Amino acid sequence: MGLGLRHVAVVVTCWILMLCSVFETSYGSKTRHYKWEVEYMFWSPDCKESIVMGINGQFPGPTIRARAGDTISVELTNKLYTEGLGTPWADGTASISQCPVNPGETYLYRFKVDKAGTYFYHGHLGMQRSAGLYGSLIVDVADGEKEPFHYDGEFNLLLSDWWHRSVHEQEVGLSSRPLRWIGEPQTLLINGRGQFNCSLAAHFSNGSAEQCKLRGNEQCAPQILHVQPNKTYRLRIASTTALASLNLAVKNHKMVVVEADGNYVQPFEVDDMDIYSGESYSVLLTTNQDPSHNYWISAGVRGRKPETPPALTLLNYHPTSASKIPLSPPPITPRWDDYDHSKSFSNKIFALMGSPKPPTNFHRRLTLLNTQNTINGFTKWAINNVSLTLPPTPYLGSIKHGLKDAFDQNGPPENFSNEYDVMKPPVNANTTLGSGVYMLGLNTTVDVILQNANAIKPNVSEIHPWHLHGHDFWVLGYGEGKFTKEDEKKFNLKNPPLKNTAVIFPYGWTALRFVADNPGAWAFHCHIEPHLHMGMGVVLALGVETVGNIPNQALACGLTGKRFMNPKQN
Amino acid sequence: MGLGLRHVAVVVTCWILMLCSVFETSYGSKTRHYKWEVEYMFWSPDCKESIVMGINGQFPGPTIRARAGDTISVELTNKLYTEGLGTPWADGTASISQCPVNPGETYLYRFKVDKAGTYFYHGHLGMQRSAGLYGSLIVDVADGEKEPFHYDGEFNLLLSDWWHRSVHEQEVGLSSRPLRWIGEPQTLLINGRGQFNCSLAAHFSNGSAEQCKLRGNEQCAPQILHVQPNKTYRLRIASTTALASLNLAVKNHKMVVVEADGNYVQPFEVDDMDIYSGESYSVLLTTNQDPSHNYWISAGVRGRKPETPPALTLLNYHPTSASKIPLSPPPITPRWDDYDHSKSFSNKIFALMGSPKPPTNFHRRLTLLNTQNTINGFTKWAINNVSLTLPPTPYLGSIKHGLKDAFDQNGPPENFSNEYDVMKPPVNANTTLGSGVYMLGLNTTVDVILQNANAIKPNVSEIHPWHLHGHDFWVLGYGEGKFTKEDEKKFNLKNPPLKNTAVIFPYGWTALRFVADNPGAWAFHCHIEPHLHMGMGVVLALGVETVGNIPNQALACGLTGKRFMNPKQN
Repeated sequence: MGLGLRHVAVVVTCWILMLCSVFETSYGSKTRHYKWEVEYMFWSPDCKESIVMGINGQFPGPTIRARAGDTISVELTNKLYTEGLGTPWADGTASISQCPVNPGETYLYRFKVDKAGTYFYHGHLGMQRSAGLYGSLIVDVADGEKEPFHYDGEFNLLLSDWWHRSVHEQEVGLSSRPLRWIGEPQTLLINGRGQFNCSLAAHFSNGSAEQCKLRGNEQCAPQILHVQPNKTYRLRIASTTALASLNLAVKNHKMVVVEADGNYVQPFEVDDMDIYSGESYSVLLTTNQDPSHNYWISAGVRGRKPETPPALTLLNYHPTSASKIPLSPPPITPRWDDYDHSKSFSNKIFALMGSPKPPTNFHRRLTLLNTQNTINGFTKWAINNVSLTLPPTPYLGSIKHGLKDAFDQNGPPENFSNEYDVMKPPVNANTTLGSGVYMLGLNTTVDVILQNANAIKPNVSEIHPWHLHGHDFWVLGYGEGKFTKEDEKKFNLKNPPLKNTAVIFPYGWTALRFVADNPGAWAFHCHIEPHLHMGMGVVLALGVETVGNIPNQALACGLTGKRFMNPKQN
Repeated sequence: MGLGLRHVAVVVTCWILMLCSVFETSYGSKTRHYKWEVEYMFWSPDCKESIVMGINGQFPGPTIRARAGDTISVELTNKLYTEGLGTPWADGTASISQCPVNPGETYLYRFKVDKAGTYFYHGHLGMQRSAGLYGSLIVDVADGEKEPFHYDGEFNLLLSDWWHRSVHEQEVGLSSRPLRWIGEPQTLLINGRGQFNCSLAAHFSNGSAEQCKLRGNEQCAPQILHVQPNKTYRLRIASTTALASLNLAVKNHKMVVVEADGNYVQPFEVDDMDIYSGESYSVLLTTNQDPSHNYWISAGVRGRKPETPPALTLLNYHPTSASKIPLSPPPITPRWDDYDHSKSFSNKIFALMGSPKPPTNFHRRLTLLNTQNTINGFTKWAINNVSLTLPPTPYLGSIKHGLKDAFDQNGPPENFSNEYDVMKPPVNANTTLGSGVYMLGLNTTVDVILQNANAIKPNVSEIHPWHLHGHDFWVLGYGEGKFTKEDEKKFNLKNPPLKNTAVIFPYGWTALRFVADNPGAWAFHCHIEPHLHMGMGVVLALGVETVGNIPNQALACGLTGKRFMNPKQN
C-alpha cells in the first residue's frame, strides 16, 4: 500500500475502467463519495503542538471504508497556500498519474477497489507523508462473500512516526552538503496519537520519563481498544512510517496473522510481529486472558538504534475500567539488530491455499543493487548506480505522447558488475542522477532481485522495504550475501505470498516475481521517505500505448502542459 | 514596487512589448540574462539558524542591475520539493500573470525596464516574502542620460523583517479560528542581516542585550557602509518587510530625499525618514562629519508597539577602523505612535519639477473602505465589506477567454454606506469573501479614495501601505477622518508625487489618481503580507481584450488548464 512518487505516472487503464464502473455497477456495489479539503492545521499528535496536514480538520485523514467492487470518488481540494499536492491514493487496485494539484484547485479521484483487505492512502509529493497526510482504507469482502476466517469485532491500528522539526527543514537537511540527517523520530503514533515527554507506562520503567497525565480527550490520548472477554478481534495494522521499521506486540496475547498487504496468508501464530513502512497486516487476537486486567499494546523500533520510545495503548477488557493500569509492563521490543527474529517472521508468511501461483518461468530479470552514494558531496541512494531524480513532467503523459525530452531515454542498467563486493563500502561511492525507465512488455513475467549492500560507512547495511505500485508481486525468497544463480533453486514457487511491499535485510537479497499486466507507469521504491527523497527508486512502464484518455488536469504541467495547451482552439 | 498577488494577473502587453524589445533593441540597450534556482536552505539571517528561501544559494537573492531600456531575462527554476512559486517580478514597468511554477519546472521571465530607479522583486505566493524570497532591482539611467542629482558612490539598503516561526506556521495561525496572530518580528534585517539575542550597540543601552561578538564573516554580520570623507552617497533604501513600517536614520547626518518608488521628487532634507513595506527611496548623504569616528545607521519600527530591536549597521569613515565603536548611541526611532511625525514626512514629498502632472478630471472614482472583519469566527480584512479570496485560475487568462466560472462576475462595490462611522468599530463585523474585479476603461482616469477606519477593537486603527501593480499613481493628498466632497478642494494637482505605494494613516484617507493605460489584470492591495493573506486587496482589470498571446505555461492551471489542454491535437 502506499506511496507514489511525486509525478510518477500511474494507472490510467484502471482509472478508465473505474469511470466505466460507475455505469456498469454490478448488483450491490456502490460509488462512495468523499469531499476532502487538505490543509495545514495546529495539532498535538504527541501532546506537543505542531502543524500537521489534515483532511477536513482531522488527523489522520478520514478512514475510507468500502466493499470490494465499490467505486471510491474523492473530490480533493488543496487548501494549502503554496504547496501542490500529490495523489493520496489507493494502490494495488488503482492510482493515478498526474500533475500536482495546485493551491486552490480541486481534483476528482475515482477508482474501483477490487480486492478486500487492509490498505492506507497517503500524499506523495516531497515528504508530505512525514507531514501527516495519510489515513486508512479498509475494503470489506463483496456482498455475499465471506472472509476465510471468523472474528467478532475489529480495530484499526495505523502506525506512523513523528518529528518535531518541520518537513521543510527535514527536506533541506537531506538535500544539504554535507547531509544533515533527519535523525530518529521524536514519537511513534498509533492512529495519529503518541506521547512525547511522558510515558503511559512510566511507573514500570526505571527511566526518567514522567507518567502521562491525560484525561482521555486530548488529541494525543491513546485510542484504547475496548474488548469483550473470549472474543476474537481482527486488528488491521498498517505502517505509514517515514522511517521506522516497527515490531508490535500485545502483552500476554498471541496473534494469528491472516492477511498481508491485502492478500490472505496461511494463518500463523506469533507473539510479536514486524511491520515495515508500506506494509499492512491483519491479525486475529483472542481475548482469552484474565478480564479483570488490562494489557499493553506496544510498537517499538526495529533495524535502527532506537532513540524513540515505543508507542503504547491499552487492550481494555470489559468491564474493567480503562484507567486501571496493567499488572505487568508493556511487551519488550526485540533488540533492534536481532535480524534473525525479523527473518523468522518474514519466512513464516505463505499464501493461503488456493491463492494464485506464480508462473514457473520469467521473461526478464532486473537485478537491482541498492547502494548509498555521493554526488559532489551530496549523499544519495542509488539503484545500479543511478539515483532517481523525478522530472517535472509526469511519465505517463510523456511516454504516451512520445515526449522524448521529458526524461532520460536510455533505460537504466538491468544488473551490476560481478566484481561488486556487497559486503564492503563502495570502492567508488560516486553515482549519477537519472530519470530513465524500465520499459516492460505487457503481460510478461518479470523477476526482480533486490540486492542489499554495505552503505558508505563500513559495517553498516540498512533495511529497505521496497514497494511496488500497480501490482502485487510474489516474494520468492530471501537470502544472505550476494545473489547467485544457485539461489534460484531455493525459490518458493509453491506458495509464495503475494505482497506489494517486501523488505531487503542487511547484506541480503530478496527475490520477487510479478506479471506486468496493469498498463501504466509505476514507481517501485524504498518506502522509507528520506531514502526515496535521496533517489532510492526506479520507474517501470508497460502497455502505456493501451492507456486511454488521461484527464486534462493530470497533464497540465511540465512539457505536457506546454505542449498541449491550445488557447486559440477556444 | 513589489508584491503580486498569487495568481493575480498582470502585464501582458508589457510582456509582449518586452519580447519585441529583444528584437528592437535600441542602441546601447541590452538583454541581461539571469539563471536562478530557488530553494530552501539553512541560513542564519539573525545569527540563529533557520531555513530561508534562497536564490542560487544566496539570501537575499541576487541584485539585478540594468540600464533603462534593457531587457531582463530570468530563467527561474523551482527547486522546492512541494511548493509552487509565484513570480518574483519587477513591477511598475512589468509583471506577469501566470500559474504557479511547479516544483522542478523552469519559467522564463522577460521584461523591459523602462524607467531608472530603485526597485525590488519578491515572490508572491502565500507568504513567500516572509520566507525570504526577495532581492534588489536597480535600474540606472539610459546611456547618455543623467540623474538630476550628483553623487560619488552608492549603497543599497534592502530592509526586511524576520520571524523564527516558519511561514507555514504563520499561515496556519492567520487562518485559524480564533486568529493566531504572527506577532512582531524577532529581528529587522538590512540586506538580509540582523542580530537576535545580541546588539551591536549594547554598551550604549541600559537593556539586558549582550554586545554581539561577531568577526564580520558571519551571515548575520552587518554590511558596513565604508565611505570617504566629504563625498556624497546615494543610499537606495527599499522595504520588503512583511509587517513592519520603519524609520531610518544615520546618526549626525542629514539625508536629502531625491527619489520615491522609482520617481524623482523635489529634494528635501530630513533627519530621519519613514519607509513602509513596498516603498523605495533614494536619499543623498554627505559625509561631512568628523572622519575619525563611525556613525550608527538605525532602522526601527513605526506604527505598531515595537517589540523588535532596531536594525543597525555602521557608516565607517575612511581611514577609521570599522571596528571602532561610535562615540554616541544609535539614533532613536521616533515614538511608534507619533503619527504627526510620519504625516510630516509624507507631506514633504512632491514631484520633481517637470514630472508628468495628473489629469485635472477623473472618469471614475472608487472609494475603498478598509475594515477589519470576521467570517464565522475567522478574522479578515475587507474592502467595502468584501474580503478578497483569490481563485485558482489566474484572472488574466479567465478574463481574456471569458471563463465566467473562474471568479465572481459581479464587480465589487465602488463605495460604502454614508452611515458608516469610520471612527468606531464596525457595528456588524461580518463580511463576505469575494473574487470580483473592478473593470476599468482603458486610458480612463481613475481616482481611488482609500478610507481607513477603526479595527474591531475600539480605539485601534492601523497603518496600511497600499501598493498598485502595473501603474504609478499620483498621491493627491492625505486627510483625517471620513473623506468628503469638500476634501477634493485640498487635492494637490500641481506637483503631486508619482508613487506605486501610499500609506493610509489611522482614521485617515489617502487620495490617489492614475491613468489606466497598461492593459492587464492588476492587484491593488495592502503590502502588509498577513493583511493581504487575510483578504485586504482588490483586483483591477483593463484592456484585457488588447492583450496578445499569453504563454501556455502561464495558463496551465485552474479552469484555463482544464479547458485549453488538447492532447489529441498532437
